[in-house]
Amino acid sequence: MQFSEMRLLTVIAPDSLEEHLTREFKALGATGYTILPARGEGGHGLRTSELEGGNIQAEVIVDADTAERMVEHLFAKFLPRHAIVVYLMRIDVVRPHKFVAPTTP
Amino acid sequence: MQFSEMRLLTVIAPDSLEEHLTREFKALGATGYTILPARGEGGHGLRTSELEGGNIQAEVIVDADTAERMVEHLFAKFLPRHAIVVYLMRIDVVRPHKFVAPTTP
Amino acid sequence: MQFSEMRLLTVIAPDSLEEHLTREFKALGATGYTILPARGEGGHGLRTSELEGGNIQAEVIVDADTAERMVEHLFAKFLPRHAIVVYLMRIDVVRPHKFVAPTTP
Repeated sequence: MQFSEMRLLTVIAPDSLEEHLTREFKALGATGYTILPARGEGGHGLRTSELEGGNIQAEVIVDADTAERMVEHLFAKFLPRHAIVVYLMRIDVVRPHKFVAPTTP
Repeated sequence: MQFSEMRLLTVIAPDSLEEHLTREFKALGATGYTILPARGEGGHGLRTSELEGGNIQAEVIVDADTAERMVEHLFAKFLPRHAIVVYLMRIDVVRPHKFVAPTTP
Repeated sequence: MQFSEMRLLTVIAPDSLEEHLTREFKALGATGYTILPARGEGGHGLRTSELEGGNIQAEVIVDADTAERMVEHLFAKFLPRHAIVVYLMRIDVVRPHKFVAPTTP
């Protein structure tokens, strides 16, 4: 079986940002996303109060270039005013084309 | 402390598949599994409607060979009719034997 | 954009341990944590009954040294009496200092 390396981009954010976040994901080239309900504390040093309510852990699978572009965009868009945590990890998938939008810029 | 590399296999699927999926995990050599409630959209390009309801993110820890065998089996079993997303990542665990079923085929 | 490699430490445990676990995380140098509600079975070979109730999947982002120290501590503290699963993975973050407590021992 043939595996290809892609990136899993994870964003932990207040759940009030869910709609805004998923809209950004799609605009930036994601073909889908997964939202896990979460709670947490501390925001890893960021504005504590905001991350103490209901959070979401949002996950998208994208190629390395799209992942980096998304991180840059999400930081510029959300960090000035919101407590979000963003990280990337390497994953192996079988059908990488499924995670590349036909209209990826 | 001694770490060993294993694989975390993640499956995102409609929650109606939970029982079927976990039965397959065990039949294929998993000694346990974790289910996270999830929601999502798009299924990364797969049959959109199915992944728009309640989803699950199912996770199992297995060795590399078992992981590859599971991916192959899950694709053959579920993909023809269901929208599932499957990926592998490398993790470090302390007691790898805990994740190997005595009866692994 | 400059990425730095950190560790994501994941702990799967009975939800009755949540408060105890998060207290330990902070005492050991975490600046935040995320809790995902979970369910599961088998505990990967560990005391099955305990992991069949409500579980949590707890996640913290720390540097490699802190991660290793945490795993050692969590095993010593919880494993004798509880069914927990612990694993590490490598992640890339943008602002690594956000995940290092000023008072990390």
